[in-house]
Formats: sequence, structure tokens, C-alpha cells
Amino acid sequence: MSNDDKPRLAIDMDEVLADTHQKFLSLYHRDHGIAMDLHQAPGKELHENLPEHLMGQWKIYINEKGFFRDIPPMADAIETVKALRSRYEVYVVSAAMEFRNSLEDKYDWLGEYFPFIPWTNILFTGDKIISADILIDDRIKNLAPFNGRRLLYTSPHNTLITGYERVNNWKEVAELLR
Amino acid sequence: MSNDDKPRLAIDMDEVLADTHQKFLSLYHRDHGIAMDLHQAPGKELHENLPEHLMGQWKIYINEKGFFRDIPPMADAIETVKALRSRYEVYVVSAAMEFRNSLEDKYDWLGEYFPFIPWTNILFTGDKIISADILIDDRIKNLAPFNGRRLLYTSPHNTLITGYERVNNWKEVAELLR
Repeated sequence: MSNDDKPRLAIDMDEVLADTHQKFLSLYHRDHGIAMDLHQAPGKELHENLPEHLMGQWKIYINEKGFFRDIPPMADAIETVKALRSRYEVYVVSAAMEFRNSLEDKYDWLGEYFPFIPWTNILFTGDKIISADILIDDRIKNLAPFNGRRLLYTSPHNTLITGYERVNNWKEVAELLR
Repeated sequence: MSNDDKPRLAIDMDEVLADTHQKFLSLYHRDHGIAMDLHQAPGKELHENLPEHLMGQWKIYINEKGFFRDIPPMADAIETVKALRSRYEVYVVSAAMEFRNSLEDKYDWLGEYFPFIPWTNILFTGDKIISADILIDDRIKNLAPFNGRRLLYTSPHNTLITGYERVNNWKEVAELLR
């Protein structure tokens, strides 16, 4: 629990606050004519749905400066997170360390879309070895070792996973946690 | 405890792994002729020992790109941390979010001096809401809310603080934790 006794709510960025999937698609569309409504096979990563010669391209995109700077926020994320601050101490926890060039972009993106989250409540991590009450994340590698309440935010790559409390969108998060 | 059951050892950067104090002094020396052996009054921040007209200068230095890139590592830190990995899962935890321009510099600095720390074990935070067994830090604002074993790394600004287990240098850390 935080100092003021509000429960700590930790929230992932990519595929949770930020529609990173949409950003990838827009780049594949721009550079290779891939359809924006490319069929996403359940349980597959986005790149696993692409023609074989494009499957490695995501690693180039994601390491480019600017990739994380102009990602669209997920629908209803901003309003919902803003409102949840009255009941929770909200932290943003992103595994940004995997991509050195993401650090400034993610910091600036949060400043643009979530300026009400102070620097004290932002964590760029490797492993999410955090002490919090709730974690919303789309990756079970982050949720599995977490000791609090674990909310799996639905993303095409995780739709086949069972055994986790699931949220499908930010309206559901708002209903569940308010 | 981490997956492989080694205790988690979390280590701060500034004034613990990195001699940030020394970096500040070298800039004050270069720009204003301040002596490198400027007397440090116990319990005072470095800038509180400076002439009044220079007291605010540190905020300019610390926000400049490059400030955190060429700080000398603390004596014996590299060898000690390297050796401690056999008994501990070592994480570096720095409150880097306070200074946006520090992010890439700190990342690159760790890559130069501590390349054996993988990205999974680096956390740039605001509040250090981490789950670990031991935390070595020079600031009690970070140690006080931490639930594990708290080691106060001696720095001029904290010499008057009592009630914490204290380490004065990396040789003492090595003896205590090996």
C-alpha cells in the first residue's frame, strides 16, 4: 500500500495504454501495403500473421527512434486512468529497457497523453519486480511472477491464454475497478 | 525471491555505483574555480557547501544531456557487483525519471561499466516500489518505505542519519554480503 493508503495500481504501456499493434500495422501498411485489417490469428504475435519475408521487420521498426513517440493511445485509456486516480495510486510500468531508443519516446509520450501521472509514478523496467496491489498487463511473463491481483489485458497474442482475470478494454477496467 | 531462488539485491546508481558528487565538483571546478576538495559539511547536500550565487547551478548541470554519461564509477563497485552476482540476483534501480535527459545517458553508462547486468535487471523509477530482498541506497526517502534489508551507502549528505545499517564503501559491501 502507498503512503496515503490507496491501493497501488500498476499499468503496462504497450498494448494496454498504447495501441502499439496499430502502430506496427500502419508501418507495414505504409511500407509493404499490408492491409490495416490484417487478420490476427488468435494466440499469434502480429508478425506471425505476416508474409514470411516481413516477419523480422518488426525488430527494425521497434528499435528506430520515434517508434514509440506517436503511438495512438488505447480507446478510453486516458479518461479511465485519470478517474481511477481518486481510488488508486496509479503507476505506469513499462519494460522499456529492452529497447534503448524507446526511453525518451516513452517518457515524452506519457508527458503528452498522461501528463497527470507524475514522474514519481513512472517505472521503466526490465523484469517487473514491483510491489503493487494490482497489475494490468498483456503479457503473462509479467503477470505470472506478480504477487497482487493480475488483470490480463486482451491482445490478439494472448487470446488463447486461460486462468487469468481478463479485461477486454478500458470500459471494462473502469467498471471492474471503480 | 527470484526464479532461481537467489535473493534479489537492488542497487542505486548515483552516489552508490556512480560518483555523481565527483562529477558535480569537477564541473564547479571547471566553471567557477571551486576546489576539488571543497569541504563537505556533514549532513549537507553538495550545493549547500557552495557560495550562495552557485547554489542553484546544480539543477542546470543535472538536466544537461551528457551529465550522467561520463561519471566515474565508485571505487571497487564494478568488481564487487560482478562478484556478488554468484550469490544474488542483482538489479540496478535508479530514480532516473526525475531527469528526462538522464535516461539514455544512464542506460549507456551501465552498458559501458556494468555490461554484465542484463536489461532485464535494470529499472529506472520514480518511487522505488520494488520487490527485493536488499536495497543499497544513499537516500532514506528510498530506503524508508522498502520492506527488505536496507543498507545506507554513506555520502556526505547522509552522515548524520542514524538507525540504518550503513556501508561506507564497496569493500564493506563485499565483506557484508559475500
